Amino acid sequence: MPNHSQDSTEIDKTEILKALAHPVRVDFLEWMKVPEEHFSNQLHPLEMGICAKQFEERCGLSQSTVSTHLSTLEKAGLVKSSRVGQWAFYSRDEEKIAAFLSDLKATL
Amino acid sequence: MPNHSQDSTEIDKTEILKALAHPVRVDFLEWMKVPEEHFSNQLHPLEMGICAKQFEERCGLSQSTVSTHLSTLEKAGLVKSSRVGQWAFYSRDEEKIAAFLSDLKATL
Repeated sequence: MPNHSQDSTEIDKTEILKALAHPVRVDFLEWMKVPEEHFSNQLHPLEMGICAKQFEERCGLSQSTVSTHLSTLEKAGLVKSSRVGQWAFYSRDEEKIAAFLSDLKATL
Repeated sequence: MPNHSQDSTEIDKTEILKALAHPVRVDFLEWMKVPEEHFSNQLHPLEMGICAKQFEERCGLSQSTVSTHLSTLEKAGLVKSSRVGQWAFYSRDEEKIAAFLSDLKATL
């Protein structure tokens, strides 16, 4: 599995909590957990990640709003993206998500 | 243990995530977990909860800022308060915190 970040286990808890403080972004992460259920219309293999366009169709929000939400998730380290031609594909960073949940549980 | 809310296990995940999206509020919750370590100067018994004044002294923020942070935590259901004379005492709502962590883990 490719490692898109320099240190995949380093997390910024505050940045992640800010990213999760919007229900749409939590929905995005939840949908990506079961892509075959939520993004079955995607023509590209789901293993490539989920195309930004798919999120737009799924949630009905504008391209720019979806793009901002995905960017927020990516900056927080919760998702990774890869570009194929004009399209960006997003997938969950399971290692970061697990590290965050573990950190939060230890803190709270 | 008194039950200060109508349904102590009902949580609003988004409200809680918003409340946690500020590091000071996470600090407050973390300090309240070990009150004898962080609030040993309090004259009232720590079992009463932690007086708002104690948070001010501990973090150096103004009374109104601390009050706003504590109110945000309380509205999210993460802490409970009780009033004794002119003072408000705060304590963690362990049941809500546990329910939130469990819910978040199941969602993410």
